[in-house]
Amino acid sequence: MNTTPPHLAHRASRLAAALPPAAPDGAIAFDSGHASPAVLPDLRAAATSALGTHRAETLQYAPRPGLPEMRRWIAEHMRADGCAVTPDEILVTNGAKHAIELLCRLLLDEGDAIVVTAPTYFTAIPIFRSFGASFVEVPQDRDGLDVDALRDALEARARDGLPAPKFVYNVPDFHNPTGVSMSLERRRALVALASEHDLYIVEDSPYRSVRFDGESLPPLKGLDTDGRVFLVGTFAKLMAPGLRVGWVAAPAPIVARLVQLKADGGSCPLTQRIILEFAKDGGLDAHGARVRATYRANRDHMVAALARELPNATFDVPEGGYYVWLALPDGVDADAVAARARDEGVIVIPGSKFFARADVPHPSNLLRLAYSHASADEIDEGVRRLARAAAAVREAAPALAAR
Amino acid sequence: MNTTPPHLAHRASRLAAALPPAAPDGAIAFDSGHASPAVLPDLRAAATSALGTHRAETLQYAPRPGLPEMRRWIAEHMRADGCAVTPDEILVTNGAKHAIELLCRLLLDEGDAIVVTAPTYFTAIPIFRSFGASFVEVPQDRDGLDVDALRDALEARARDGLPAPKFVYNVPDFHNPTGVSMSLERRRALVALASEHDLYIVEDSPYRSVRFDGESLPPLKGLDTDGRVFLVGTFAKLMAPGLRVGWVAAPAPIVARLVQLKADGGSCPLTQRIILEFAKDGGLDAHGARVRATYRANRDHMVAALARELPNATFDVPEGGYYVWLALPDGVDADAVAARARDEGVIVIPGSKFFARADVPHPSNLLRLAYSHASADEIDEGVRRLARAAAAVREAAPALAAR
Repeated sequence: MNTTPPHLAHRASRLAAALPPAAPDGAIAFDSGHASPAVLPDLRAAATSALGTHRAETLQYAPRPGLPEMRRWIAEHMRADGCAVTPDEILVTNGAKHAIELLCRLLLDEGDAIVVTAPTYFTAIPIFRSFGASFVEVPQDRDGLDVDALRDALEARARDGLPAPKFVYNVPDFHNPTGVSMSLERRRALVALASEHDLYIVEDSPYRSVRFDGESLPPLKGLDTDGRVFLVGTFAKLMAPGLRVGWVAAPAPIVARLVQLKADGGSCPLTQRIILEFAKDGGLDAHGARVRATYRANRDHMVAALARELPNATFDVPEGGYYVWLALPDGVDADAVAARARDEGVIVIPGSKFFARADVPHPSNLLRLAYSHASADEIDEGVRRLARAAAAVREAAPALAAR
Repeated sequence: MNTTPPHLAHRASRLAAALPPAAPDGAIAFDSGHASPAVLPDLRAAATSALGTHRAETLQYAPRPGLPEMRRWIAEHMRADGCAVTPDEILVTNGAKHAIELLCRLLLDEGDAIVVTAPTYFTAIPIFRSFGASFVEVPQDRDGLDVDALRDALEARARDGLPAPKFVYNVPDFHNPTGVSMSLERRRALVALASEHDLYIVEDSPYRSVRFDGESLPPLKGLDTDGRVFLVGTFAKLMAPGLRVGWVAAPAPIVARLVQLKADGGSCPLTQRIILEFAKDGGLDAHGARVRATYRANRDHMVAALARELPNATFDVPEGGYYVWLALPDGVDADAVAARARDEGVIVIPGSKFFARADVPHPSNLLRLAYSHASADEIDEGVRRLARAAAAVREAAPALAAR
């Protein structure tokens, strides 16, 4: 076959391209959730131990729910963070996106609605779309997801005779792309509203441990008393993205059903054991401190560069995570700026990619900038290039408008 | 929530438990597709290089289709095996079952029929069921899948106004569980029939390189001239199951669509690079020779033990792969023997697990015995235990019948 069979076209055409095209050589990457090269851990000793002492475990098929020791480690890590979970409430997955996919397979039927913030994590959008989900968008502010607006939306759906959404998807800590963390009051209100309307909550929490300032607030999972919050975690930000080990924490009967849908012969025991070997004796805690110090410095550097180079753009300084959510001034079109920025040699993602619904208007002047991957010099130079791109678009705009 | 929500029950209840319960301590495992502990490779040097020289690659997100070098390696490996594929026709997956799952996501709608042999690979059955597939079972003989019977079944469906099956799933080399390899004539006939009826073929080929005797025949993919064979491969049997790296070879437009459904941030680059490091300079070829020598000796050992201990049972000596498909004499019930064997301390899988359809009768005297994992001494002792279990069931049978 030289062309795609027409009867398959509908499947993949639902999926927006989830990742931007590869960056040109020499471009500075403000687009990716990659780790800083400065904080990639040295895992050689951990791997040598995993492939020597633990060879019979790491090279055979593993238990599908995860290595027992890994499930215990994750449960303990979560208990220390205020979530009363047991190892049988943990499912190890091939990264966090695999956890989201499994939850979709379990929970969604074609045409089901789910609740997302506007904006939301852009890589999750095509996953949800591939299951035929429709989107209920709710706004957020500096306190996170607007729970009152969600209540109104749920009540409006009920009045219209529409079925309730299946779940609320949210990133309550250092939200992607906005960097916002939900206030305690909002967290409590969201969990209570979910209980009242019998909704599940998928709490996607990759950045929780990457906090620079302010006070850590309980995960939604820690406020949940009736087992309706499913927390998705990952070692991508704790250690390294390439390990592809994530997890979902959910009531044991849900985990048992997710295991049945997890048709993979067990997630890779080698990478699980490497993580356990690296984490023991405080290794992961020490690494986490290095990661936070590096990203805090990167954030400070980017904040200073933006204040210097783009004084008319506005943003809130994130207390953690990887991203600055930048509002360009005067309705400058962010898609045009992102395209121009690519020509200037810096890659950013326009805000338009982060809105799940294409059929309602959204602000067009927003950009997500990742400070995680670039060095201090790259941040300085990248922001300068971005400022040139924004200036060029502003100058061109009146001419375009006059045509 | 302390119980499973009723509205979720239908999803997982479709899935038979795919794996048997864990073996009791001291039991001999003839049930698993695990590798022999004697041939688990030493990957420490490969991992040290992967995590040192290649750190920026192995610890960051990887390209979703796979590392370019891995796609080239697999394409070259397949070209040497008679399949004219290019790297853009290769998708790297999280093991072979992930490849099967992605193909199901692309190809199947709820209620679609697929063609499987009776018996078929028992771990694939729950994957297909989880997508709501129904099964067209076709028999096989010593030449593999009975293509004439498949033609009759397709024509009968057409006469009955039923839609054509979406694909044929088969393991043409060292079939799981029967060990049969398709003859060249049957391979040609199957590919031609698929073309005639516009069916896809999913060629699951984990054991192809584990041949002890006889002549290697072309893969179905190598006989395919119109891009309808999707070959699923894996490093589980070439190197080690725990690596969780597999692939699918399919026309580039199909690969592009599978990539869109592959919501995982790229398969683990660390395990891909470890494989490449181990494979270079002939490392994988040398390892493959050791694997074949070990499994040939294990097979010979099991064949001798079966002839000695179970002279009334019959089987064909497999020319490769992991399994003997044993027919017990005189209608002895294999489910009862497998249960009794567990008590005796040897784990085998009764043939009943390998039939996709529960609504039609199948032979009840069959067992699958894996010789891959056990040592020579374990094979001797395990077959003795199995013989005791079979004798006990035969002795008990008249008493049971008389009740």
